[in-house]
Amino acid sequence: MSKIGVFDSGIGGLTVLSQLINRLPGHDFVYFGDNARVPYGNKSERVIQHYSLQATKFLLSHNVDMIVVACNTASALAINQIKEMASGLPVIGMINSSVSDAIKITTNGNIAVIGTESTIASGAYQNKFSMSNIKVTTKSCPLFVPFVEAGMISHPALDLIIDEYLNFLKDEDTLILGCTHYPFLKTSIKKYLPEINIVDTGESAAKLAAQLLGPNNGIGITEYFVSDTPNNFINIAENELGLKITNLQQLNIEEW
Amino acid sequence: MSKIGVFDSGIGGLTVLSQLINRLPGHDFVYFGDNARVPYGNKSERVIQHYSLQATKFLLSHNVDMIVVACNTASALAINQIKEMASGLPVIGMINSSVSDAIKITTNGNIAVIGTESTIASGAYQNKFSMSNIKVTTKSCPLFVPFVEAGMISHPALDLIIDEYLNFLKDEDTLILGCTHYPFLKTSIKKYLPEINIVDTGESAAKLAAQLLGPNNGIGITEYFVSDTPNNFINIAENELGLKITNLQQLNIEEW
Repeated sequence: MSKIGVFDSGIGGLTVLSQLINRLPGHDFVYFGDNARVPYGNKSERVIQHYSLQATKFLLSHNVDMIVVACNTASALAINQIKEMASGLPVIGMINSSVSDAIKITTNGNIAVIGTESTIASGAYQNKFSMSNIKVTTKSCPLFVPFVEAGMISHPALDLIIDEYLNFLKDEDTLILGCTHYPFLKTSIKKYLPEINIVDTGESAAKLAAQLLGPNNGIGITEYFVSDTPNNFINIAENELGLKITNLQQLNIEEW
Repeated sequence: MSKIGVFDSGIGGLTVLSQLINRLPGHDFVYFGDNARVPYGNKSERVIQHYSLQATKFLLSHNVDMIVVACNTASALAINQIKEMASGLPVIGMINSSVSDAIKITTNGNIAVIGTESTIASGAYQNKFSMSNIKVTTKSCPLFVPFVEAGMISHPALDLIIDEYLNFLKDEDTLILGCTHYPFLKTSIKKYLPEINIVDTGESAAKLAAQLLGPNNGIGITEYFVSDTPNNFINIAENELGLKITNLQQLNIEEW
């Protein structure tokens, strides 16, 4: 049995955790949601690296065997620093495996990536695709995370925002949801773009983690930690994702 | 000449600063925008108090003579702690002066307050009005701050969100914009509610500060400090509010 550490700024990473638990039954998980400082997607490299290393240090203190960076912004801006701190442990980010999956899925070589402002501005996806002959287009969608955090995952205003952000799409046949909050918007995005292939970065990362670890017999435990009051955290985890939260602690990150 | 310290989680407090500078010419200002941890409005009391006291300590280190808490959430949840730390200095929050103004303005005694989730949940406005015979209704509007932060202050999707949040209004003739981000939405809110009296909490607070200090001859200086890259900070300050930013420093709050 392995213990897998997972972190995100808040509820987005729960979409990744849910995929991991499905594909890695019998393993233990430690989830940290940094909801005292959510969102990460509009913060700078320096700040993201600082927050990500604090999260990594916390997960390492729980003796995890693997770290899954369940946030595209942290993956884009801090993966090297996280790997260095985790010295030798496998660290899975959201970018490499989803880029590989998108390249396998596209039939016309035109792929779009949407994400937070910081993820898109980092150029991490663009750099990864530059090693292929794919034509990649990108767009930051700063209001998608707030809509998810506000629980507005189906609303006429969201449909207008989806049109605002996604009407740039032309020949792309594949769309990477480059933020772990966006799977909550999958139904609304599918309605706007019924033909496009959608790549969920958490699903791609969970497949990779499952290849590395394989299933385990027995019953796995998931411990949840948050840095602020879990307002909508439990509600979304249980009602939207079917997770059962029996073991949740709120941390005093002021002491970090 | 006095030096006035002003803080907020980011750009919202600039609407207050702009009112203060207009009404207190010749004084110096120190503005701190905590954009590494924006927004405050979805955080808990413990976290807001911690962030607010860090900001207060920073302003006190600049030898300010007065502190203006240019954030309704910090005013609602941390004003007592801020006053205690500022021991004796005048501290002006966003709530008391706007409640007084709203009571003066209403003709039918029905007042509505909109704000962030944490401001409304705190009950601070409700408590303040309970000392009057006003009928007060409140509503949290969690997507308004993200729309402002994304620069979407005029958009059909915003109009739908305004309807979603404000269609509860019935007999109220006066509306307090209980968040310093909301003045950026004044035009769109006025379009939806052309008849209602709008109270801008920053304006109310600036009037009070001007009564306490009075104008000063000479030329005042404003120093700006932010805790993260000032992405849209300068753009909004200069283009939306007509402020001139010549003196801005980015702080390493990791060292706080």
